[in-house]
Amino acid sequence: MDKIGYYVKFRARTGQRDALVKILLQAAELTQDAPGCELYIVNTTPSEDDVVWVTEIWSSAADHTASLSAPGAKELIGQALPLLAGPPERIDLHPTGGVGLHT
Amino acid sequence: MDKIGYYVKFRARTGQRDALVKILLQAAELTQDAPGCELYIVNTTPSEDDVVWVTEIWSSAADHTASLSAPGAKELIGQALPLLAGPPERIDLHPTGGVGLHT
Repeated sequence: MDKIGYYVKFRARTGQRDALVKILLQAAELTQDAPGCELYIVNTTPSEDDVVWVTEIWSSAADHTASLSAPGAKELIGQALPLLAGPPERIDLHPTGGVGLHT
Repeated sequence: MDKIGYYVKFRARTGQRDALVKILLQAAELTQDAPGCELYIVNTTPSEDDVVWVTEIWSSAADHTASLSAPGAKELIGQALPLLAGPPERIDLHPTGGVGLHT
């Protein structure tokens, strides 16, 4: 299975989490039509007020890489960066199966 | 939105990761018919050989709780526990939107 997944942790500057969520939801809209995008879910977490987690699954690493240069992607990244308290952290995943995974 | 999500991190005893993946995939099959189960994806990760991450989304916390007492759930938990090097860790999430989220 070539599918790849990511948990991406964004830490917003104090008071900027909701603005960051808004931008990441725009990124989700943009990503919706990107080839190979199977999951791009934006989450807050009750355990850390400034953190936003994005759950991603792509049909291949190449599809993910291509999406980063899709029209509008760079602009959104440019809008998000000033809101961040530090660089995003990423957990790389290999989805093996389960409920909700495209087969 | 009442939906809740989890990233659950399981650390297997050395050499037991694949056996743990098998059990968690059986749990996914069991969970498939559980009311409110929207996502239950079992992942390995290239960064930690003994770790298995499960991505979950439920329509409500109550649905998730109910699933833990579904027929067969306790048996699977009983099979998984001896394979673990320690208790699972869980990141609680509130999905806000994105691609692949049931609306």
